[in-house]
Amino acid sequence: MGRTSKGQATESAAPTIILVRPQLGENIGMAARAMLNCGLSEMRLVAPRDGWPNERARRAASGADVVLDGARLFDSVGEAVADLQHVVATTARARDLVQRIVTARHAASEIHGWIAAGERVGILFGPERTGLENDDIVHADTALSIPLNPQFSSLNVAQAVLLVSYEWIAAADETPAERMSEHAARPADKDEMRNLFAHLERALDQSGFLRHQAMRPAMVNNLRALLQRAAMTEQEVRTFHGVIKFLGKQKHDG
Amino acid sequence: MGRTSKGQATESAAPTIILVRPQLGENIGMAARAMLNCGLSEMRLVAPRDGWPNERARRAASGADVVLDGARLFDSVGEAVADLQHVVATTARARDLVQRIVTARHAASEIHGWIAAGERVGILFGPERTGLENDDIVHADTALSIPLNPQFSSLNVAQAVLLVSYEWIAAADETPAERMSEHAARPADKDEMRNLFAHLERALDQSGFLRHQAMRPAMVNNLRALLQRAAMTEQEVRTFHGVIKFLGKQKHDG
Repeated sequence: MGRTSKGQATESAAPTIILVRPQLGENIGMAARAMLNCGLSEMRLVAPRDGWPNERARRAASGADVVLDGARLFDSVGEAVADLQHVVATTARARDLVQRIVTARHAASEIHGWIAAGERVGILFGPERTGLENDDIVHADTALSIPLNPQFSSLNVAQAVLLVSYEWIAAADETPAERMSEHAARPADKDEMRNLFAHLERALDQSGFLRHQAMRPAMVNNLRALLQRAAMTEQEVRTFHGVIKFLGKQKHDG
Repeated sequence: MGRTSKGQATESAAPTIILVRPQLGENIGMAARAMLNCGLSEMRLVAPRDGWPNERARRAASGADVVLDGARLFDSVGEAVADLQHVVATTARARDLVQRIVTARHAASEIHGWIAAGERVGILFGPERTGLENDDIVHADTALSIPLNPQFSSLNVAQAVLLVSYEWIAAADETPAERMSEHAARPADKDEMRNLFAHLERALDQSGFLRHQAMRPAMVNNLRALLQRAAMTEQEVRTFHGVIKFLGKQKHDG
């Protein structure tokens, strides 16, 4: 939280989201919800059209009250960014200002660097209809543009907050790209798989499915490969033994 | 668009977004808007609670009518995924099913691979309150979980559609991470910069600012480095010549 009072700086481990002249309370609330999902909780509001606090914002926040309760109100962009060292302005399109423009993903990476260096960072989002004006943007050192469908780039402000906040949390995320569900039982070991193959092949031999000796090796290998690919758990191997046993019984009864 | 009729496949260059038992028309509309921003236009709806078409969806789509107009209606998840070769289920948390779980970013990369191979892909999103049930999830070969704040993971369905769709477009995006605004004038060349430095230093010598000869070289280099860092355009160099000239006049008049 920037500074608690003039000259007294406190540490901030994340950027501040600054909504400039937001119009609809619903969007302020949805922005708060988006932020908290992404681990951001510092919000600043510059001259919200319908005043503050706002009951519609509260309802749309769906439990992200901590963001709204801590939101700080300012009259102007200049006052809202005064204690910050880096300000990023989100813009849908390049204006006539000469500016450095970064993607949302690159901005997230830069912001992590600034925050790690102990610097205070804010991200400006403009009002619903018009976006940020040049008089707002000149408070920023960097412009951020989210690459979207050039034929239809029409995010509302809460959607823009979500994407920028998501890139912030994603940049530090260490979730494995691919994993098995957490409550998964122990993966089967290869000895358990070998026993399963043997059981299946005995049953298929008895049933006559593998009666063509010339085709038998390829058929067996294809079935083994299929079952290997399923990455079965020890529990699933036991279930599958039951399946083979009962299908075999049915066959003999039938 | 999957198949136009049985056995007749048409090409699909993007995944289909499948909303399962969506409750609020607003969320269907916001999902459509999110999709089109990310270049996705194929939507399927499984048993929407309030029927279809839905006027609230239309209003919330903010112009993404093409998505709603083309949306296909199904009674069950099974029917909605019948013509697809890969189905990804978005889930907020791991259920008791043994499943492969991927991040949204990894899913996007996998889906691009499948689409490039000519395969048809759908992504399932569950209803607002409960998310997908196990009976829905078993239609999918892959589960997708978006890594978010573990203390507050509460996206609504349209926000989830936005993040997954965004990862889809971002995975193929070639926007430079950092660039100058498109309408920027020509960057100044180094000869123009050298002339500017010379003008500035003459003016500062005349004004007495550089009178301490021992400090002069470091001072001059720091000013040159600062102006280099600003990456000025040719137009800005001309403006700055004017600034130096007029500040110098003021000094002499004063």
